[in-house]
Amino acid sequence: MTTLSETDAKFLRIAYEEALAGFNEGGCPIGSSLAEGDRLIAQGRNQRVQQGDPIAHGEMDCLRKAGRQKSYRKMTLYTSLSPCMMCTGTIIQFGIPRVVIGEAETFPGNPDFLRERGVEVIIADDDDCKALMARFIQEKPELWAEDIAED
Amino acid sequence: MTTLSETDAKFLRIAYEEALAGFNEGGCPIGSSLAEGDRLIAQGRNQRVQQGDPIAHGEMDCLRKAGRQKSYRKMTLYTSLSPCMMCTGTIIQFGIPRVVIGEAETFPGNPDFLRERGVEVIIADDDDCKALMARFIQEKPELWAEDIAED
Repeated sequence: MTTLSETDAKFLRIAYEEALAGFNEGGCPIGSSLAEGDRLIAQGRNQRVQQGDPIAHGEMDCLRKAGRQKSYRKMTLYTSLSPCMMCTGTIIQFGIPRVVIGEAETFPGNPDFLRERGVEVIIADDDDCKALMARFIQEKPELWAEDIAED
Repeated sequence: MTTLSETDAKFLRIAYEEALAGFNEGGCPIGSSLAEGDRLIAQGRNQRVQQGDPIAHGEMDCLRKAGRQKSYRKMTLYTSLSPCMMCTGTIIQFGIPRVVIGEAETFPGNPDFLRERGVEVIIADDDDCKALMARFIQEKPELWAEDIAED
């Protein structure tokens, strides 16, 4: 586990709690929050099962719930799992300068690509995030394959 | 203008008509359709203004409306405007192998990056798509800047 600041730990925990709520709903357990400094802007979770929405990964649902923003330049996006290419592209397009990732072990995602594009990336290597995803992948491998579009 | 097959021209026209409907609603005039061969799967348009949804670019709204799909490997995504990094990342993540773009002149987007990742990209250089975007950018420069997150 990487030691996080109190603020980062607090918002990453919100992302984890969103993921856990998604798991308990029978969905893909990936959650996210968006904050500006110490102020929470929005939180969300993967809605593939709950809303039948394939673009609503955790990060995307969070950004949708944040609504229209003039600028993301002072914000940090928190996510329980390393972002896929959809969410990575969105972080870059929206100009989000900083991302805190719960874990990149069960799914590596694209932290190097984010860094290449100038995004600060912190990987918390959080045990709770890892355990939740491991349980999900074991219990529902087909749903997980669908969520990351693996045929 | 690039000469398209009859099928490609038909589905790109649907994307343009979605864009035009978005313009008439006061939104960002970018539309999209998704097809498998000659079969239309879904169509959609940018919903930033209409639904206050910053992730609902034309391509994303179309993919949302298509709902859960087991595979996109035989599909083509049509879009009136060259895809931004969010939509580019989504095309790559979803494994969509082919994209037909109305125009890449008013917004270049990321056709080279798509091609690098193995996506077939056709740019139609469509006059109607260009004229609609040019009119929008002239009439609502602030809304356009917000949609592509330019501060």
